[in-house]
Amino acid sequence: VAEFDLIERIRARAGRRDDVVLGIGDDAALLQVPAGMQLVVAMDTLNAGVHFPPGTAPAEIGWKALAVNLSDLAAMAATPAWCTLSLSLPHADAAWVDAFLDGFLALADAHRIALVGGDTTRGPLSVCVTVHGFVEPGRALRRDGARLGDDVWVSGTLGDAAGALAQWRGDEAGRSVASTAVDATRAADTGALPTPHDAILRSRLDRPTPRVALGAALAGLAHACIDVSDGLLADLAHVARASGVAIEIDLAALPVSDALRGAFLSERLHTLQATGGDDYELCFTAAPAQAARVELAALECDVQVTRIGRVIKGVGTHAFDAAGNAWHPPRSGWVHFA
Amino acid sequence: VAEFDLIERIRARAGRRDDVVLGIGDDAALLQVPAGMQLVVAMDTLNAGVHFPPGTAPAEIGWKALAVNLSDLAAMAATPAWCTLSLSLPHADAAWVDAFLDGFLALADAHRIALVGGDTTRGPLSVCVTVHGFVEPGRALRRDGARLGDDVWVSGTLGDAAGALAQWRGDEAGRSVASTAVDATRAADTGALPTPHDAILRSRLDRPTPRVALGAALAGLAHACIDVSDGLLADLAHVARASGVAIEIDLAALPVSDALRGAFLSERLHTLQATGGDDYELCFTAAPAQAARVELAALECDVQVTRIGRVIKGVGTHAFDAAGNAWHPPRSGWVHFA
Repeated sequence: VAEFDLIERIRARAGRRDDVVLGIGDDAALLQVPAGMQLVVAMDTLNAGVHFPPGTAPAEIGWKALAVNLSDLAAMAATPAWCTLSLSLPHADAAWVDAFLDGFLALADAHRIALVGGDTTRGPLSVCVTVHGFVEPGRALRRDGARLGDDVWVSGTLGDAAGALAQWRGDEAGRSVASTAVDATRAADTGALPTPHDAILRSRLDRPTPRVALGAALAGLAHACIDVSDGLLADLAHVARASGVAIEIDLAALPVSDALRGAFLSERLHTLQATGGDDYELCFTAAPAQAARVELAALECDVQVTRIGRVIKGVGTHAFDAAGNAWHPPRSGWVHFA
Repeated sequence: VAEFDLIERIRARAGRRDDVVLGIGDDAALLQVPAGMQLVVAMDTLNAGVHFPPGTAPAEIGWKALAVNLSDLAAMAATPAWCTLSLSLPHADAAWVDAFLDGFLALADAHRIALVGGDTTRGPLSVCVTVHGFVEPGRALRRDGARLGDDVWVSGTLGDAAGALAQWRGDEAGRSVASTAVDATRAADTGALPTPHDAILRSRLDRPTPRVALGAALAGLAHACIDVSDGLLADLAHVARASGVAIEIDLAALPVSDALRGAFLSERLHTLQATGGDDYELCFTAAPAQAARVELAALECDVQVTRIGRVIKGVGTHAFDAAGNAWHPPRSGWVHFA
């Protein structure tokens, strides 16, 4: 299978939009940005063994490669429109590409995004995606907008992806007794299905849900926003620095999924939740007077939101446990080049 | 060095433009497309050992990663504006990144392009770039516009990059006697400078010149355009297929650099010129009545252009030697997944 055949395979399945003047098949794509709108562009790469465990199914890789990029648009309150895909593969495997597209295009179609260009090439497995969206001038949510007195909110639950990664790494420290016991049974019984908790966590790692509708609903309501990709404290540190403020987090307030609580002991939860990356939830700040409107916006998007802290004077991000004691993570969040 | 430090290093040196509302440092970039213009987007990846020889200097990799993308915009007659960069590195090497940026930003600054986003991450050395430009509606040069009777033109000279690659591979077949003799001397004298011819060819491989000004000048003049990245015949086959025509090429008319002629025997030249990739020259078709205007446009851009063939009825691309005999390449152009 040559490069052109793979491209034709991709082109045949790519979605269509009226604002795509010319899509896959020329030297570049021709696109029409709606009058009066700003263009929003994000780009993120997933490398095998770094951003997903070796052996991850191609459909999951496809989904996640687009999801992490859409999450960046969501954090800006942008409406996604187009994407480009650069796919590096060790060899031209049409079946692999088809399965990859199953995941990638399922998410693209759900958000009505057209795949308009890119390339396929030989190399170690790597997926680079650029996404394009629109936002009205002045409506984008930025990292530098947090104001003193703001509440800090987060969508969904935190720590699930980090829990899945810990399980995949075989890191048993802090696993709950029930979970460990099930694992022991499973280890003795090759081919057994994973526990429901494990499957739920793994699905959160492999198929994160970009909070696109919530991001758009928060425009004009939230003051600052970021997506949780590197870990809550690490990501909030960016907001604090960009906004010239400090941020306090109540660890006891962090939303925990039943799956995570079922799989890990409570003393492990803080670390997974406060420093684990890859959740792709939105973390945002808003004036306390807007709390009811934030709750309503989230309800309309069918997403849970939780108040987890506040914006104060100072610098940095500070976490406190239920007793009100300052808490420090064993190591700071997900650093690719640690 | 952590990822954020590398990003800060890149941000500090990225160019500025008035139409960049928000550049590197948030979840996504905010950009303002000029009213009435279409957006043109291209994306290409360079992988170590596939798109450049191992050991290529980081500045050359930086230059080339942007150049191959600008070449795609040039082939559409677009004016470049912004780019994003996803850099995968085996380890966070600040000196390497600085040198990479020397090449990347030299070309970006020359074309007044702002680097507005992307990511740095751990992985096998790989550089993915997305470029954005503008074109007036209806002015873009496409692959599907070639008309019967058109002349086929090419800019610059062909085969230089393929010659450099053949030299780097140590492929001595068809090297000229003079060139081989010099190599033998050099091999016995470690550290000697490359011959001028070799250096010129290698520079054409490492630092291709995207024909941005020429592309823009051809809008409204050329009927179809493509950049020569995979090899002349392979690239023209795309034009022929998209336009529903056939294309004839006179091999004797292909522009040859002195460096290539000096380094290879004449029987080898046809293959290097007709099938070698990586030249990043523009190949375009135009009505014969426009020949003088094409020459003038090229002169104003300080680029040589040469008529090398014509658009005829039929299918496919056909090459003829000086005696008028049909010529077939030993193998078709550069296929990444061969």
